[in-house]
Amino acid sequence: MIKEIQAGVTAPKGFLAAGLRAGIKAGKTNKDMAMIYSEVPAICAGTYTKNVVKAAPVLWDKRVTSQCGQARAVVVNSGIANACTGREGYENCNKEAELAAGLLGVRPEEILVCSTGVIGVQLPMDVVEKGIRELVPAMEASTKAATAAAEAIMTTDTHKKEYAVECDIDGHTVTVGGMCKGSGMIHPNMGTMLAFVTSDAAIEQSVLQEVLREEIEDSFNMVSVDGDTSTNDTCLVLCNGMAGNGPLTAGSEGLSIFRQALRQVLVYLAKQIAGDGEGCTRLFEVVCEGASSKEEAKKISKAVVCSSLTKAAVFGKDANWGRILCAMGYSGASFDPETVDIALESDKGTLHIVKDGIATDYSEEKATEILSGHPVRARLHVHAGEASATAWGCDLTYEYVKINADYRS
Amino acid sequence: MIKEIQAGVTAPKGFLAAGLRAGIKAGKTNKDMAMIYSEVPAICAGTYTKNVVKAAPVLWDKRVTSQCGQARAVVVNSGIANACTGREGYENCNKEAELAAGLLGVRPEEILVCSTGVIGVQLPMDVVEKGIRELVPAMEASTKAATAAAEAIMTTDTHKKEYAVECDIDGHTVTVGGMCKGSGMIHPNMGTMLAFVTSDAAIEQSVLQEVLREEIEDSFNMVSVDGDTSTNDTCLVLCNGMAGNGPLTAGSEGLSIFRQALRQVLVYLAKQIAGDGEGCTRLFEVVCEGASSKEEAKKISKAVVCSSLTKAAVFGKDANWGRILCAMGYSGASFDPETVDIALESDKGTLHIVKDGIATDYSEEKATEILSGHPVRARLHVHAGEASATAWGCDLTYEYVKINADYRS
Repeated sequence: MIKEIQAGVTAPKGFLAAGLRAGIKAGKTNKDMAMIYSEVPAICAGTYTKNVVKAAPVLWDKRVTSQCGQARAVVVNSGIANACTGREGYENCNKEAELAAGLLGVRPEEILVCSTGVIGVQLPMDVVEKGIRELVPAMEASTKAATAAAEAIMTTDTHKKEYAVECDIDGHTVTVGGMCKGSGMIHPNMGTMLAFVTSDAAIEQSVLQEVLREEIEDSFNMVSVDGDTSTNDTCLVLCNGMAGNGPLTAGSEGLSIFRQALRQVLVYLAKQIAGDGEGCTRLFEVVCEGASSKEEAKKISKAVVCSSLTKAAVFGKDANWGRILCAMGYSGASFDPETVDIALESDKGTLHIVKDGIATDYSEEKATEILSGHPVRARLHVHAGEASATAWGCDLTYEYVKINADYRS
Repeated sequence: MIKEIQAGVTAPKGFLAAGLRAGIKAGKTNKDMAMIYSEVPAICAGTYTKNVVKAAPVLWDKRVTSQCGQARAVVVNSGIANACTGREGYENCNKEAELAAGLLGVRPEEILVCSTGVIGVQLPMDVVEKGIRELVPAMEASTKAATAAAEAIMTTDTHKKEYAVECDIDGHTVTVGGMCKGSGMIHPNMGTMLAFVTSDAAIEQSVLQEVLREEIEDSFNMVSVDGDTSTNDTCLVLCNGMAGNGPLTAGSEGLSIFRQALRQVLVYLAKQIAGDGEGCTRLFEVVCEGASSKEEAKKISKAVVCSSLTKAAVFGKDANWGRILCAMGYSGASFDPETVDIALESDKGTLHIVKDGIATDYSEEKATEILSGHPVRARLHVHAGEASATAWGCDLTYEYVKINADYRS
């Protein structure tokens, strides 16, 4: 029903994109600015960081999505986060929006702006303005343009992250495309870092906002690289209605299909972020089953995926299940440690290492073999009910420390 | 009033100790068992891990401190945690207590037992029993014996941790001595890892338990090395009354002096654990001032001391204050980011790097110089009230990853 396609944010009808180097980042070749544009006004919804310290663009976009609920374009820069920049930082968002709006022939309050990078530094506005002037004529509806945009929003990411799917709603092909970035300071309490989803679905704004809010909980909000919730986390969805379907309303079958398509894009992008965690070698997936509630299952799976000791053990291919059980124990969930089962899984096989809270007679050699696979999955069963949840993270490596000991230099 | 003395758990009258190698740990020379003994029955109090997964000795000791409130001796082993060991693990605690009680001529329910090390492995009881038989005749009241005990409880610790103070209560010299261990899996939600405090004060059991519960909150519970709350965290205090003072009761001046002495010992030991965090190069202290409540001050200081990104920046001597402000922001405390001041301090000086939420015009060179000092302190002022709190942690290094990637091998 939901069909994966090789494309990104320009896959839905009427969306253009561009990515290029303006000169914000150090180095000479890295792209650092992107733009997404819809040929017609698009309904938009957003979820944002719950960090008390919110970057200026987060404050700007919250106003756009809550007051207008409609947008025409998104301007993004990487290299500087425009966070902890006071009034000047917010004024710079306004300047970006005004310039882009003027060039595109739309209103400034229809322009979303996003930033990611170093905190506490003002944007070099001359460079940013030059970038915006170059982005507007560079935009195309091609997959190449979508890829350029996905590349331009990267910071410590080792590869671009984009995805798209198609589905059929009432005889109309509806497409959902997305891109995101994120590698460090990843512990979203909302939607992580920067993620952009475009669709040509026709949908009511309040319905879109509600669907996004719900789906973020099981996708980006279940990812953690290092437990640090960023000041800039933003996930924006733009739907321009060009697929031709009748507007999706609450409770309709069409909405249910659109929700599945959106979920598939959000989960794919979330896993891409986890698997590209700073310095990591592998995606680490933790599935908690048999919990008394979804909330309990989430607490348990997130605690394990966040445990530094467990993450280091995954890196070391050490089946140190005591650390997994320990993390489950401090998760805040209530369960009986003596009914816990744990299995380790990867492309190299499956191994049941804990039964009823104590070690099975497993082979350490086999465990090491499985832990050398990719991705590594820990499957936990607490035998307390029917609820389950999945969290995504990565291993903890020397490289993570190296990257973050001298990020600014 | 409170005088530091060069001693440990044998400093108070009537306490003996021993530490030796029984053969639990790998290698040939590392001590791995310790015993503390009081010549007369001692009032005892304990605080324990809040992890749902509690090691067998934690369950045993909770029973002793809550049901009897009186103890004669503590038996400790390092190398194996006796956690996630089911009924057999608890039965082994019973065996240890019975053997020690028989040799010491006391009751098994007066014997406290503690373990630390690898989770999920049963204690080699033949080795443990041999150790107990050797510990009993080896005990002495000497400082050398106290040091041997402090050494025997170490795991990845790089040095032994012990401390003692004297104070005068109603004309009687009251002594408080302590030792502890802890380096990884340190994020106490109670009292960390293993800590043992002895005193010759006379005090009511309920008063001692209450004072310990309160003082733990500002000492061990403000330490974090890696965010992982262990299954074995235990802090035990034994008071045998041999100082000759009248029993300390709630509200008395004597209790206030004793509380200060106890606090000094607990804070000293807590800082020792933070400063010897696995792989760390420096103690990292975070002071939050001007908070609206103690609870808010604690949330803020703990979030910063736990932030992987901030810890990596301390290791890299990078004054990345954005990460500090970011961690304050996701701490759960409410404050106005635009009134935050941040200073960095060490033995190399003080530097005000943030004023009213944005960067001062500070020198990066000077910042790097301060961050190369020891210990490193971040002093945060949120201008919301009068409350303050201090948290202790350490930097995040390659070595931490190395230690934990192959802990069991």
